[in-house]
Amino acid sequence: MALVVQKYGGTSVGSVDRIRNVASRVARVYDEGNSLVVVVSAMSGETNKLVALANEICEFPDTREYDVLVSSGEQVTVALLAMCLKSMGYKAKSYLGHQVPITTDSAYSKARIEKISDRKMRKDLEEGTIIIAAGFQGVDSGGNITTLGRGGSDTSAVALAAALKADVCEIYTDVDGVYTTDPNLCSDARKIERISYDEMLELASLGAKVLQIRSVQFAKKYSVDVHVRSSFNDNPGTLVTKEDKKMESILVSGITYAKDETKIAVRRVPDKPGIAASILLPLADANISVDMIVQNVSEDGSTDFTFTVCKADFKKALMITGEVAEKINARDIQTDESISKVSVVGLGMRSHAGVATKMFQTLAKEGINIQMISTSEIKVSVVIDAKYTELAVRVLHDAFGLANKDVKPE
Amino acid sequence: MALVVQKYGGTSVGSVDRIRNVASRVARVYDEGNSLVVVVSAMSGETNKLVALANEICEFPDTREYDVLVSSGEQVTVALLAMCLKSMGYKAKSYLGHQVPITTDSAYSKARIEKISDRKMRKDLEEGTIIIAAGFQGVDSGGNITTLGRGGSDTSAVALAAALKADVCEIYTDVDGVYTTDPNLCSDARKIERISYDEMLELASLGAKVLQIRSVQFAKKYSVDVHVRSSFNDNPGTLVTKEDKKMESILVSGITYAKDETKIAVRRVPDKPGIAASILLPLADANISVDMIVQNVSEDGSTDFTFTVCKADFKKALMITGEVAEKINARDIQTDESISKVSVVGLGMRSHAGVATKMFQTLAKEGINIQMISTSEIKVSVVIDAKYTELAVRVLHDAFGLANKDVKPE
Repeated sequence: MALVVQKYGGTSVGSVDRIRNVASRVARVYDEGNSLVVVVSAMSGETNKLVALANEICEFPDTREYDVLVSSGEQVTVALLAMCLKSMGYKAKSYLGHQVPITTDSAYSKARIEKISDRKMRKDLEEGTIIIAAGFQGVDSGGNITTLGRGGSDTSAVALAAALKADVCEIYTDVDGVYTTDPNLCSDARKIERISYDEMLELASLGAKVLQIRSVQFAKKYSVDVHVRSSFNDNPGTLVTKEDKKMESILVSGITYAKDETKIAVRRVPDKPGIAASILLPLADANISVDMIVQNVSEDGSTDFTFTVCKADFKKALMITGEVAEKINARDIQTDESISKVSVVGLGMRSHAGVATKMFQTLAKEGINIQMISTSEIKVSVVIDAKYTELAVRVLHDAFGLANKDVKPE
Repeated sequence: MALVVQKYGGTSVGSVDRIRNVASRVARVYDEGNSLVVVVSAMSGETNKLVALANEICEFPDTREYDVLVSSGEQVTVALLAMCLKSMGYKAKSYLGHQVPITTDSAYSKARIEKISDRKMRKDLEEGTIIIAAGFQGVDSGGNITTLGRGGSDTSAVALAAALKADVCEIYTDVDGVYTTDPNLCSDARKIERISYDEMLELASLGAKVLQIRSVQFAKKYSVDVHVRSSFNDNPGTLVTKEDKKMESILVSGITYAKDETKIAVRRVPDKPGIAASILLPLADANISVDMIVQNVSEDGSTDFTFTVCKADFKKALMITGEVAEKINARDIQTDESISKVSVVGLGMRSHAGVATKMFQTLAKEGINIQMISTSEIKVSVVIDAKYTELAVRVLHDAFGLANKDVKPE
């Protein structure tokens, strides 16, 4: 008898039939003698529909009201799934974010979980009730509804698993697990059986799309084993877990790419202390995440300051940066909306040099120009022209021998 | 400077353009120096869409989860309207039922308001914030979401007006006010300028569809003046208010009909004390409202017991009554799903006899058979074959001279 947290994404609950399918899965696990907390997303397409309504009303919808709006999507799914289980004769009960409560800060649309009360849920679990919890949403200390940002349901699931000290957290999605790269680009991409939190963090943040980055941070912090698997079959997926020796022996575990970024270059800014902060602070205040940052060496006392933000934040970031650029006497701003970021990730890099070199050589051989470079302990990322994305991913996947199972460190 | 509560129904907020139209109306009233609480329903069609999803899942959806599901409709509208007003430069803030909070009992889908806290709202109003409140929904003492039943947004509006001691409560809808009968059936139906709470109660409960019955009870209890008017023009509508001398001089103020009822007859039940209760109690326990009840005189120690319930409750009521009928040895059950109830309503009836007689004569002259009769101090209702509904309404409207403004009591 275990306490299992399961999370089903929008595609898995995208229709009444699929909700029934989820209910059968849940019922099966319950009948095997387990306690269950099931976290669900909005039906696929619903959140987009709500966002479209908001954008029809105005260009920059108020963020408090935006969260009230989009959180209604999960409210529909929890009710339908709980109804379905009850009609099958099971004890089930839906929980909205404010009913748990899942307390967050007040950063609407990007809220962070601060505390989860397990009291009410535990009582229901003890009585044999299956809990259906709305993912993605929380409530701040003032009783306002908040959301955790796109993909936040993964975070809800892992956070609930941590709060309830669940035995396992299963993330059901429409893919079989985490692959060495996007199988749509590389037909010989391979499913990874086990991966460390740190590698998964790099893969997720770089666009693996399978698991939301913040959920992995949560999982790492509270040592929650996360099993990513498909809701359409019973195949084992990928286990995201603590690092072990065997993982270290693999040089590169995956190649990822992200096409949803844009580049903003503030050109010819005076090269003096405080300039970087004066550009980045207003963006942080507006809750815009800056990803890569590059500052070139100084020339004639001025320099170029370049960074990337995700496409959704581009307009707002450009507006804010424009104001700053005027204040600090920059010459102009250049933007590029058709870039992509390609990265190689692997724990093995920490103890083996040469990964970056091999990456750059491989790209150069194909005539792909590198616009920006950024590195961490276990990944190397480059920004390239978006049109070379697929080519870059394929040649790198091949160069690092990812299609074969037994890759030896060089 | 007044405190105005406005309520907009589903048709008035049925699209982004219509929400913009509502926002302009609200802004105009605010600019005139008033404080505003705006109550909104779900976008027209949305609640039906949600109900259809529930019915696709199962025949009798769990009521707790049903309320979680359908309350999401109002959540969408409050967010969109608040967003719209904010984008126009106004201070606005959405309130869900549990955020006010509007505390109700736990009778899901038919909950009754027990208490409204005005503390948070008052503070916002004092700061000049326009409050956009979700109609139809509340929260019980256990933190569960409840709904007030179809049309419950009217009740939300009147209850908020009472709690905040508002100067006026305006109910915006897609008609110009309350008519002497359905203008679609009678082209010479006339708009009523002022009507008493009691008459409105009879009109509303009998199917006038303009104002939910419970909202009128609330208005009467707390003496809230309710102005029913159209959201598509600036015409004055109908004021529902305290009874005055002039109103009493009108014999009949309106003819209404209801086609959403069904008849269940339990035939040949033993005529002994406790039989009526044994039939009605299980229905009450299942939260099914029984409307008309008729028990015929006894014959051979047994009698027929007939009642009507609304179409939505029919299946459930029949199931429950079937079980009871077996227990009490009734001969059988007969049902009729194609009936309608036609009623004449008027304060003047209290002091003038002959209204019922005139009604029965008028129907007889057209060959319309009366199946059941029920009377109150200010109304007479009959159940007839549904196919005669339109004819009955027209001849009665004519017989009581409602098309003419100055009807003298006989």
